[in-house]
Amino acid sequence: MQKRYDVLTLGETMIRLAPPRWQRLEQADSLEVAVGGAESNVAVALSRLGLKTAWVSRLTDNPLGHRIAQTLRAHGVDVSHVIWTPAGRVGMYLVEFGQPPRATTVIYDRRGSAMSEMTPGDFNLTLLDEARLLHVSGITPALSPACRALAEGVLRMAAERGVLRSFDVNYRAKLWSADEARAALEPMCVGVDVLFVTQQDAQRLFERQSDAPEILRWLQARFNVGVAVMTMGKEGAMALDRDGCFYKGQAEPTPEVDPLGSGDAFAAGFLFGYLTDGNLASALQLGASAAALKRTIPGDLALISLEDLRQVTDQNEGQIRR
Amino acid sequence: MQKRYDVLTLGETMIRLAPPRWQRLEQADSLEVAVGGAESNVAVALSRLGLKTAWVSRLTDNPLGHRIAQTLRAHGVDVSHVIWTPAGRVGMYLVEFGQPPRATTVIYDRRGSAMSEMTPGDFNLTLLDEARLLHVSGITPALSPACRALAEGVLRMAAERGVLRSFDVNYRAKLWSADEARAALEPMCVGVDVLFVTQQDAQRLFERQSDAPEILRWLQARFNVGVAVMTMGKEGAMALDRDGCFYKGQAEPTPEVDPLGSGDAFAAGFLFGYLTDGNLASALQLGASAAALKRTIPGDLALISLEDLRQVTDQNEGQIRR
Amino acid sequence: MQKRYDVLTLGETMIRLAPPRWQRLEQADSLEVAVGGAESNVAVALSRLGLKTAWVSRLTDNPLGHRIAQTLRAHGVDVSHVIWTPAGRVGMYLVEFGQPPRATTVIYDRRGSAMSEMTPGDFNLTLLDEARLLHVSGITPALSPACRALAEGVLRMAAERGVLRSFDVNYRAKLWSADEARAALEPMCVGVDVLFVTQQDAQRLFERQSDAPEILRWLQARFNVGVAVMTMGKEGAMALDRDGCFYKGQAEPTPEVDPLGSGDAFAAGFLFGYLTDGNLASALQLGASAAALKRTIPGDLALISLEDLRQVTDQNEGQIRR
Amino acid sequence: MQKRYDVLTLGETMIRLAPPRWQRLEQADSLEVAVGGAESNVAVALSRLGLKTAWVSRLTDNPLGHRIAQTLRAHGVDVSHVIWTPAGRVGMYLVEFGQPPRATTVIYDRRGSAMSEMTPGDFNLTLLDEARLLHVSGITPALSPACRALAEGVLRMAAERGVLRSFDVNYRAKLWSADEARAALEPMCVGVDVLFVTQQDAQRLFERQSDAPEILRWLQARFNVGVAVMTMGKEGAMALDRDGCFYKGQAEPTPEVDPLGSGDAFAAGFLFGYLTDGNLASALQLGASAAALKRTIPGDLALISLEDLRQVTDQNEGQIRR
Amino acid sequence: MQKRYDVLTLGETMIRLAPPRWQRLEQADSLEVAVGGAESNVAVALSRLGLKTAWVSRLTDNPLGHRIAQTLRAHGVDVSHVIWTPAGRVGMYLVEFGQPPRATTVIYDRRGSAMSEMTPGDFNLTLLDEARLLHVSGITPALSPACRALAEGVLRMAAERGVLRSFDVNYRAKLWSADEARAALEPMCVGVDVLFVTQQDAQRLFERQSDAPEILRWLQARFNVGVAVMTMGKEGAMALDRDGCFYKGQAEPTPEVDPLGSGDAFAAGFLFGYLTDGNLASALQLGASAAALKRTIPGDLALISLEDLRQVTDQNEGQIRR
Amino acid sequence: MQKRYDVLTLGETMIRLAPPRWQRLEQADSLEVAVGGAESNVAVALSRLGLKTAWVSRLTDNPLGHRIAQTLRAHGVDVSHVIWTPAGRVGMYLVEFGQPPRATTVIYDRRGSAMSEMTPGDFNLTLLDEARLLHVSGITPALSPACRALAEGVLRMAAERGVLRSFDVNYRAKLWSADEARAALEPMCVGVDVLFVTQQDAQRLFERQSDAPEILRWLQARFNVGVAVMTMGKEGAMALDRDGCFYKGQAEPTPEVDPLGSGDAFAAGFLFGYLTDGNLASALQLGASAAALKRTIPGDLALISLEDLRQVTDQNEGQIRR
Repeated sequence: MQKRYDVLTLGETMIRLAPPRWQRLEQADSLEVAVGGAESNVAVALSRLGLKTAWVSRLTDNPLGHRIAQTLRAHGVDVSHVIWTPAGRVGMYLVEFGQPPRATTVIYDRRGSAMSEMTPGDFNLTLLDEARLLHVSGITPALSPACRALAEGVLRMAAERGVLRSFDVNYRAKLWSADEARAALEPMCVGVDVLFVTQQDAQRLFERQSDAPEILRWLQARFNVGVAVMTMGKEGAMALDRDGCFYKGQAEPTPEVDPLGSGDAFAAGFLFGYLTDGNLASALQLGASAAALKRTIPGDLALISLEDLRQVTDQNEGQIRR
Repeated sequence: MQKRYDVLTLGETMIRLAPPRWQRLEQADSLEVAVGGAESNVAVALSRLGLKTAWVSRLTDNPLGHRIAQTLRAHGVDVSHVIWTPAGRVGMYLVEFGQPPRATTVIYDRRGSAMSEMTPGDFNLTLLDEARLLHVSGITPALSPACRALAEGVLRMAAERGVLRSFDVNYRAKLWSADEARAALEPMCVGVDVLFVTQQDAQRLFERQSDAPEILRWLQARFNVGVAVMTMGKEGAMALDRDGCFYKGQAEPTPEVDPLGSGDAFAAGFLFGYLTDGNLASALQLGASAAALKRTIPGDLALISLEDLRQVTDQNEGQIRR
Repeated sequence: MQKRYDVLTLGETMIRLAPPRWQRLEQADSLEVAVGGAESNVAVALSRLGLKTAWVSRLTDNPLGHRIAQTLRAHGVDVSHVIWTPAGRVGMYLVEFGQPPRATTVIYDRRGSAMSEMTPGDFNLTLLDEARLLHVSGITPALSPACRALAEGVLRMAAERGVLRSFDVNYRAKLWSADEARAALEPMCVGVDVLFVTQQDAQRLFERQSDAPEILRWLQARFNVGVAVMTMGKEGAMALDRDGCFYKGQAEPTPEVDPLGSGDAFAAGFLFGYLTDGNLASALQLGASAAALKRTIPGDLALISLEDLRQVTDQNEGQIRR
Repeated sequence: MQKRYDVLTLGETMIRLAPPRWQRLEQADSLEVAVGGAESNVAVALSRLGLKTAWVSRLTDNPLGHRIAQTLRAHGVDVSHVIWTPAGRVGMYLVEFGQPPRATTVIYDRRGSAMSEMTPGDFNLTLLDEARLLHVSGITPALSPACRALAEGVLRMAAERGVLRSFDVNYRAKLWSADEARAALEPMCVGVDVLFVTQQDAQRLFERQSDAPEILRWLQARFNVGVAVMTMGKEGAMALDRDGCFYKGQAEPTPEVDPLGSGDAFAAGFLFGYLTDGNLASALQLGASAAALKRTIPGDLALISLEDLRQVTDQNEGQIRR
Repeated sequence: MQKRYDVLTLGETMIRLAPPRWQRLEQADSLEVAVGGAESNVAVALSRLGLKTAWVSRLTDNPLGHRIAQTLRAHGVDVSHVIWTPAGRVGMYLVEFGQPPRATTVIYDRRGSAMSEMTPGDFNLTLLDEARLLHVSGITPALSPACRALAEGVLRMAAERGVLRSFDVNYRAKLWSADEARAALEPMCVGVDVLFVTQQDAQRLFERQSDAPEILRWLQARFNVGVAVMTMGKEGAMALDRDGCFYKGQAEPTPEVDPLGSGDAFAAGFLFGYLTDGNLASALQLGASAAALKRTIPGDLALISLEDLRQVTDQNEGQIRR
Repeated sequence: MQKRYDVLTLGETMIRLAPPRWQRLEQADSLEVAVGGAESNVAVALSRLGLKTAWVSRLTDNPLGHRIAQTLRAHGVDVSHVIWTPAGRVGMYLVEFGQPPRATTVIYDRRGSAMSEMTPGDFNLTLLDEARLLHVSGITPALSPACRALAEGVLRMAAERGVLRSFDVNYRAKLWSADEARAALEPMCVGVDVLFVTQQDAQRLFERQSDAPEILRWLQARFNVGVAVMTMGKEGAMALDRDGCFYKGQAEPTPEVDPLGSGDAFAAGFLFGYLTDGNLASALQLGASAAALKRTIPGDLALISLEDLRQVTDQNEGQIRR
């Protein structure tokens, strides 16, 4: 029987403000507005690729909150389960794009957001029965103790109800220390069907300095996950399934227009493959293509179609289609 | 002996974000950045008119905080007494400009700001000895109990040290109820040298519905102030001094480009006259001219000179100076 | 039993391009992009006010077509019944905003649009069973013979199935002559539940020069409609129901930011009242408020909420909400 | 026999820089670029209305100079007689648009421009034989002694060769004093076929405070001109011909988008009527319509057509053409 | 005897709309306006380099049509032979700039344009007697059967009158299939004095996969052209004259700002050399420099001077001229 | 005893106007406004790094002049010694950013500026007693004979009063010839404590073609300077002290966002190190880091902090800090 949602996500989405390239925040006279959040970025991309998605969160009932809901809805994500509140505020983040040696820098301004006060009791558990897969990231437990309980609870309930679970570690050093994050995130990784981690997070969080296959084996052994997927920047990505099979995907080299959200685009591309034909090699390829396209698009959202993904492999540099 | 500062102010200054006219916040793809806060608006205008001013506050040490300090410093306000902290956040406000029947609407996002956690102990009292006049507004006590204690304490200490005191009631209904405000603000009004209040605030806060002279007499009687000044929008402004003399100023009619900060420009114009030649009639006129010019200038700040103020009276509508 | 949709609409929606105010098309170096179409404008406003709406149309499967669908979906309009085609083009219109004596001028560039080739057979008639009211405008039959047959057919089928019908005359002199329009539109007006017409169209199309009540009586007599509603610009609007009762609504005076779509906002406000409490006097008021707010908002869409409508009556000119 | 040019003009054209409305120069982060000069403004408008025009000047051979030539050429003005030089600079002016009581202010930065160093010998006198009318303004003699000699010489030679002559007094108080201007301009007014003067200049320069007919009679008597034309802002314009006939034109009231160049548009509209059918009443009407349209268009140039002029009289306020 | 025009061109020119870099069309809130068309791009560049050019086309008499004419006229192209019509529309194209792996994509929206309905009878053949060289591209015959007849007819008449002929193959896969194009274009290539083709078109259209010299020999043999010129992207360009001499030009490597129109800039640079000193080696160099500069300039037009071309060879990377 | 200023500078600062990237000046419809001048660029950077600085100059009392003063004051530079005059103009420069093979080109428009008429008598010599180091550049003597006398005089007086002196050769080929510059600058180099020169200027001005160490030895021998510092673009920089010790610094490779002002940022970074710990190796490193960061920031000013400088060495390409 087909379920109402292919993918259900839960998390915080923020208003993103950025100076026009390459200005400093100090000097910008206008800030470009976008909408971004790790989990809803995944939902938008999956919805555009053709899957049915919903995003659960808590938003302040003001124009900024409505803007977030409208943006996600525009791309087909079901936002009807969002909890609206007159209290709190809408989380924001500011991003200043730099060219080396100047870093691209994020300033979070999400303290006191409506989402950070969402509790396990706010989540309608019957939604889990309507979803094929639940996608959660390691950012939510960093927001507040309530959110940590929420993320843990929902993941646990999903397991109990036989819903597939995908978890993206997504360590954010500006939100908590590596020690705090490790303590919170390790239990959440256990037993998930798909575990996403960047090589940098594997190093910072799990203190794995070894080569990719070894790290994946360690993750597999420690957390007993269905598939462990590690992204390695320009080195591409690698996956390890329960049968011990390794899969390797190449990264598409791209000039960088906007790196934010490319990890989420990768996750979406991978999950699309995972949920449609289950071929992990092609899932890695879809993830790499989605991430590469995202890096060429301003904003957090991967404004791509399945057709776009398919054209990545044929692409000749500098070609004009006319 | 001349003091280091003509006017010392204390208060919170925020990053202001506004959609390009007349867009709604929902639809704006960029937000224009400005810097505004009632007290620093007054300081900037006074500094541009030629007085020596300083602004005391507490700011988070990030690009937004530095932007605020730089903006005020650009106009000659001494910001060297600002307290920098790695904690907290920089307060923001969003403003959506409307034409009737759509209101111009402000959304405050200042909860948890560094300034809201400033305490009386943070204020270096020796500064009071260096100032001729202290200007405080009724917004500061609305920010937090700590800020209420701070504003009260500084006003009291100024009185003890013989510093002139100016107080602008500035009731903000989005920050606290009329009852709360009345309880906090009434004691602060007592005995100040200059008390500014809008007719609307006199009605909402002090429940005075009578005509202007009567309200002014009531304020004078109740708070025993040096000069009570009431602004009445298009009806101009009126002042009452301790000798019972009334002064009336006309408002300059203006098409409205940006109304934010025009009350502060009025206060600055009035204080300039009050502190330079002490003629209340011309002080009211300076206030009206400054407020009118401010309404024609985008942003909270009155980007005006003394020369500009003087030209307002000669101005013929639609004239081009070339 | 509750139906899936409160209001079902059918029509063409275009990409709108406009020079920044008040540039001429000749000189503009960038054009602002918006999405607009009479029927979808109504659907967006109704959806934002809380009704369930759907919009049926035919769109070329390219980024401009997707932009239209996303924009409507963002505001909650169901666009899942849109027919996508690789052929044709997406209709456009250019609008140059003028101040008197320069007119605001529209250049249509909608020839050959995918919608203009939609035929009666493309419309899934079972949709009519899911809607409480069908809203059609007199623009659709102007697009092509196929569209004329489509609009006539759908209106007829709706009548047969007992669906409420609303028709907005919307004569467009740049699309067809008054004679052509009269011949096509008169049969479509017969028997509808709500008929919207501007006084100017009553004059140009039906050659009625008399006063408003008389024109309404003529419309009622000739077309046997449920409610005839006539808008008269600054003179407000008037309605006449089958019982011969007249209702009068005042127009809200507004400085004009963007007049496009205000007629559609009026229709949406009126239909909202008509469908919720059925009080025609308050329906006229809601229509007037919606139209007035729309005129203050850039773009064709009435980016308003029920709360916004309610605040129109309390609004004091020039007030700032803070 | 038809001449190569209907109207030949001579003067300085500048790069115009303006902050976005209504910013102050102090705060603008970008300046809008336009091209403007009294005489070339007239030439552009006349060319767009269908006459053959040429503009003579001296320009520095750099991108700013080329931009000026390209802009004029785009509208059909012959710029092939411009003298190019590697020396000097391209004149600029900055304009800050104000709403009352803030004035719209012009800062000239034209000292040392290539045009200010043009001498009588630079002007190819044979050009005069190819033109029906020569149009000169009182700005040119204000630029430098060389330019004064140039303007005087060319006007004199034109008279000798039987070319019609039009002179626009155009007093610029920021370039010279009223005394200097009077001394230079009076001799140039003598005997011209069309003399344009604003009421303000008649007052400032010729110290005529009387009513319009009397001033016109005084001008006629003193300078012995063919037609004296005086513009009076919102009071319209009045002309007096050699036969002592008075003609009166109404001003079109307009909200003011950009007042710069509206006097030049008036002159162009008047000259168009003067040169085509010679009816001074309709020439005044054409002038008024051109000036009104210009005020609604950003930039110095009257981007209008003959068709636009004709529609001004039919125009209903707030109408949309669609 | 010198002719009135060095180069006469014929073709369609469009309004070009592009999202700000690197936005997707879906997300852009404004589109940048430019003017572009293969043949007028060539005319503009040649005119800027000092040759006398004219462009013949058919345009709808509306602001978009006038904008095209003004833009070309600004750069000195004679547009007085354009045929104006109230009917049809002005062709448009939308371009979305991508970084790899996202392609730069063009959406043509030129169906039903006024030019597509131009017929051989619309072309004033006496113009051919006034031109030294006629430049036509393979885009025109793709627009409509009428345009194909037009292009064929004009090329044939030019041959009969002894006018030099230049033909740029310019295959556009979005307008017609390779088979259709081959059938139409091959006869038009026969006997022209200069034939331009890209290596990609030689492969797609003429199915030549061999190396450059062989392809050129094949083109020479098959079409009996004066000079065959093939551009090969980063590999530079090669030419073969009737005497069997080969010439090779290097491409200038450039970071790509805007690739559109660089082929036309190449053709203009080459034709400039061909028509002035006839040295094919330096003509290839001028073409390469013009194309390289064009790629650094936003818009279709090569806003360059002869001086700019000459400086390309001296250019040191990253140098600032000050 | 601590002095009032660590660094005192003297020079001209201009309004900088630039088309948005990568437009040509010909086509730009708006120009971005910034403030720049070699010496004030150094002062701003040093002030941001924590030193006390002042800038002396002469400015016209208009909005452009005030903008310059405000901008410098915003960053903490003391501008209270600026001489204000109603006469003259504010110098400007236009910069068009090019990608190779198109050069980045500067057009100076500084003739007749208020600063160019500053004379030695305008400089308050007692200021020298309040400064630790005086920084002058070779641009000032190029402005006018008065400025040459001014720069020479101030340098000489500084020497007499025992103030440290830093001199940046900064040859500007658009202002004077190499011969003129050499004659003027050589005497000014003699005996300074820090001499900055680019390798290109060493070649163009002093005709030294040899390798870096040799050129430095030549400079040392000829001018008897404390430290000679030569920058060599991507080759880094090298310094030679009086003891004959060589120091070498690496350049940080950066994609170039805005190269203007990077030489000044280098000087500021170096002087910061020189004045704080005196270690020339780390001074070179600070200079290189400041210059590299500057190149990533739009505008002439190095909007950097000491913290930013320190992070340059840790920076990993493409990293996001979040």
